[in-house]
Amino acid sequence: MAANKADDIFKEFKEHSISEFFKKNRQMLGYSSMVRSLVTVVHEYVTNSLDACEEAGILPDLRVKIDKLGDTRYTVLVEDNGPGIPKSFIGKALATVLAGTKFHRNVQQRGQQGIGAAGCTLFAQITTGKPIHAVSHTSVNSGYSCDVSIDTMHNKPIVSNIVQEGDAPHTGLMVSGEFDGVKYDNSDHGVYEYLKRTALSNPHVQIHFIDPNGQESTFLRSVNTIPERPKAARLHPLGLTVNDILDLAHASGSSRLSAFLTDTFSRFSQGKVNELKDIVGIDFSMDPKKMTWDDASKLVDGFKKVRWISPESAHIVPIGKKYIELTLKNIINPEFMNVVERKPSVFKGGFPFIVEAAIAYGGSSGRQTDNGYTGNIMRFANRVPLLFDTGSCGITEAVKQVQWKRYGIDMDNQPVSVLVNISSVYIPYSGVGKEAISPEEEIVDEIKLALMDAARNIQHYIHGKQQLNYDTNRYKTIMRYVNQLSQNLSELTGTQKSAIHEALKKLVIEHYPRVKEHVSGDAGKGSDEGEQGESGAEDREDAEE
Amino acid sequence: MAANKADDIFKEFKEHSISEFFKKNRQMLGYSSMVRSLVTVVHEYVTNSLDACEEAGILPDLRVKIDKLGDTRYTVLVEDNGPGIPKSFIGKALATVLAGTKFHRNVQQRGQQGIGAAGCTLFAQITTGKPIHAVSHTSVNSGYSCDVSIDTMHNKPIVSNIVQEGDAPHTGLMVSGEFDGVKYDNSDHGVYEYLKRTALSNPHVQIHFIDPNGQESTFLRSVNTIPERPKAARLHPLGLTVNDILDLAHASGSSRLSAFLTDTFSRFSQGKVNELKDIVGIDFSMDPKKMTWDDASKLVDGFKKVRWISPESAHIVPIGKKYIELTLKNIINPEFMNVVERKPSVFKGGFPFIVEAAIAYGGSSGRQTDNGYTGNIMRFANRVPLLFDTGSCGITEAVKQVQWKRYGIDMDNQPVSVLVNISSVYIPYSGVGKEAISPEEEIVDEIKLALMDAARNIQHYIHGKQQLNYDTNRYKTIMRYVNQLSQNLSELTGTQKSAIHEALKKLVIEHYPRVKEHVSGDAGKGSDEGEQGESGAEDREDAEE
Repeated sequence: MAANKADDIFKEFKEHSISEFFKKNRQMLGYSSMVRSLVTVVHEYVTNSLDACEEAGILPDLRVKIDKLGDTRYTVLVEDNGPGIPKSFIGKALATVLAGTKFHRNVQQRGQQGIGAAGCTLFAQITTGKPIHAVSHTSVNSGYSCDVSIDTMHNKPIVSNIVQEGDAPHTGLMVSGEFDGVKYDNSDHGVYEYLKRTALSNPHVQIHFIDPNGQESTFLRSVNTIPERPKAARLHPLGLTVNDILDLAHASGSSRLSAFLTDTFSRFSQGKVNELKDIVGIDFSMDPKKMTWDDASKLVDGFKKVRWISPESAHIVPIGKKYIELTLKNIINPEFMNVVERKPSVFKGGFPFIVEAAIAYGGSSGRQTDNGYTGNIMRFANRVPLLFDTGSCGITEAVKQVQWKRYGIDMDNQPVSVLVNISSVYIPYSGVGKEAISPEEEIVDEIKLALMDAARNIQHYIHGKQQLNYDTNRYKTIMRYVNQLSQNLSELTGTQKSAIHEALKKLVIEHYPRVKEHVSGDAGKGSDEGEQGESGAEDREDAEE
Repeated sequence: MAANKADDIFKEFKEHSISEFFKKNRQMLGYSSMVRSLVTVVHEYVTNSLDACEEAGILPDLRVKIDKLGDTRYTVLVEDNGPGIPKSFIGKALATVLAGTKFHRNVQQRGQQGIGAAGCTLFAQITTGKPIHAVSHTSVNSGYSCDVSIDTMHNKPIVSNIVQEGDAPHTGLMVSGEFDGVKYDNSDHGVYEYLKRTALSNPHVQIHFIDPNGQESTFLRSVNTIPERPKAARLHPLGLTVNDILDLAHASGSSRLSAFLTDTFSRFSQGKVNELKDIVGIDFSMDPKKMTWDDASKLVDGFKKVRWISPESAHIVPIGKKYIELTLKNIINPEFMNVVERKPSVFKGGFPFIVEAAIAYGGSSGRQTDNGYTGNIMRFANRVPLLFDTGSCGITEAVKQVQWKRYGIDMDNQPVSVLVNISSVYIPYSGVGKEAISPEEEIVDEIKLALMDAARNIQHYIHGKQQLNYDTNRYKTIMRYVNQLSQNLSELTGTQKSAIHEALKKLVIEHYPRVKEHVSGDAGKGSDEGEQGESGAEDREDAEE
């Protein structure tokens, strides 16, 4: 009888394709709210285009066009000047979940899952029943167009209407799709903001955008060189797990463990092998294919006992201090800012990563509220702006953990912007939708250190700013009396009021050197106000360099 | 040349199994921090056990044991008295990602993905290289034990060491695994708290827990009846998408659209078909397999124009108002509380859901901080406690959107606890790790309405509480003078001080009826303090019913 219960229940046992899973759980791919869904489509296509261009060594030139068809129905078109997609791959590239060129290679790219484009196809299909249309030119005189949809039951592509296309001015891919249950808006979480931030973190990219109202904007490239192309990374011994080593060892072509180690991992010299031989009691001449969990486990313990050179930074290409400064100047033109780039560090699995952080104060930093200002955070991963799931992101977590007050920074009440970009061969996103970074200890710690560095570097200015405010207020108060006094003395002595005023002002201001510095330009104008001119703010920013 | 670029890049094109994907991205399954990883393992096994017991009509009796093997290395054992797993299914049930009995059935259960148990196997495998051990009895005189691991490359199970087992006192499944990179702790986010909350939201469940220090706790069942077993739900016409209808129509055995509609969907009578015939310009006698996107689209539009009876609640089994009250009394013993159960509503895809919300004040409500109290939120989905990813959860979002001050509630400074449970055939989790609910509009709105109802119902008490505090303070101040005055009058008149004091007190307290009510019990004691005795608080709670 009891057996019947289990047998009964297991009659319903089935296996499902990953496409079926995401068809049912599309919110996990970022297709939740209407605004977010539209941004997700743009985000997936734009990141793929940028990755493709950079991999082919092409300066990216993108065109993004959104048209409104109905209340919640839009088309999205993204066109690039990348290398295009060969005909034999177009189906799988756009309509097979978990297929692509990125998942298995240790190269820093924006995409890393092989899910994004197939997710868009799935989303179009379940909201409008329409396939995605693609036009691809892998050479200027050979191209084709086609429609692509997914057989979700089997996670297989369906390619139809293949048409030969004529010459094109350049290679590239154009994809367009029709989506329902989406909405265009101009908020902080909308498509325009997404593209703006993309342009800002990718100064070599040009994006031409046509919004649903026909409004055209071009985010011009400010740099004419393609960022250095990241090399495929070899994993760093620190951060490797037993399982990582075993998997690689069992797939290795080397016949000796020592050769496997020096061939496979970064910073692994013969000298290191010799060093480890003294510490780790295993046979370094063994066949790596025969390595056991226990052997690999001893190796991992041994790795922790020797000193390693930091990971090679050639595998990771951050935005760069200079470009972040340029970017911040462009968007928020702050009174002062500081940008910190940390050395490469290692995440679980041996993946190297680099954290860049910036703090900006004043200008249009922060977010305006009813009673003043509050701090805001701009998150990026491999130059891709992250607009959603702020609350569960490791970057947000790190920002929370910094004791800002120590640096004179009040995140709740000051115009402060924090920018963080993480660059890595592998970003541990907390979800398939890739909008938040898992708050792993190694990463949160690195971000915190970067933020604390940046905070230390600007606390002098913030302190100066506070002191200046204080002095300015005192100066202003005294000058009110001076004004009255000059008037009275002038009447008593017959000397011109302005001369007395000037003399007294000179006397007073000597006591407030900070204020003096700031009003020096206007001192001749006889203004009583200790204004901090814009020029003063500029000086401070220059002092940053 | 350009063609070479694309061809070069696509040489690297590969497909990957879902197991490989989660092996690389285990944080997406909840295996991120060490504490969370341990809770995730317990969570997956416990929810599976509870689902299995309930499906087999068995009152669940669970044993959970955690042993510490090393610094970050533990074993987890979960044993249930459920129906067991037939031998032919054990491999796929524990070691195939996206396989199970739940994904495709519209029945309210805790698990819904067919990922959890396979995720545990994967996590054991990559952290310790060890398989999961299972002992299953589908009848008391027939059982077996075995080891299970995953061939991640193909997402296929590997079952080994199958041994026939002897008689057992009851049917059931025992699973145990060895995990590294985990940590047991007693925080709000630890295993003990998880089990406690599970017991609280499942008063019919008994859990015996042995922690790594050998400390034993038993969460006794407080109810001896199994909750009504949810029926497989038919989808409700409201919330259905065109795609949902088409998928079902094309798979339908009916030969006429009208029969397909009345057979497939909830609340779909012949009367409704007739009503729709007048509104929707399609042929209701057509073969549902030949239905087009356009036909289905017209139907969906039509559905919005007729009135539907709410979804059948038989498909959804919430915790129940009575049990939530019992639960809250057990954990936080609040001064007063209110529990609201909303009527069933419909989510995208036609899935009915029910929101329950409670607000509790005082007792051990809220969270203690350095300067007093702050509100806290207890989140549940289908009775499963959600401990992580608070920031990105729809429940948190709804709590944020309520204008608490309107109800005299100060979430930042008062001892307030909010409990929300969502029950549904399908919970739209925002991630595969199932720790947060996607903030979909329909759901957030329902939660808000429930919270606002509950807040309205307790605002009277909160207001009374505030007024009482105010009056008590005034009363105390006056009574300080009364004390001195009685002394002086006694000296002047020779009358006994206590008599004068009593008389004056009587006079004063008439002006503060609220205070009077609260000190009436102690009035005879001649106490000057307007204490609010516990009995008073009890009264208030009784008044709730």
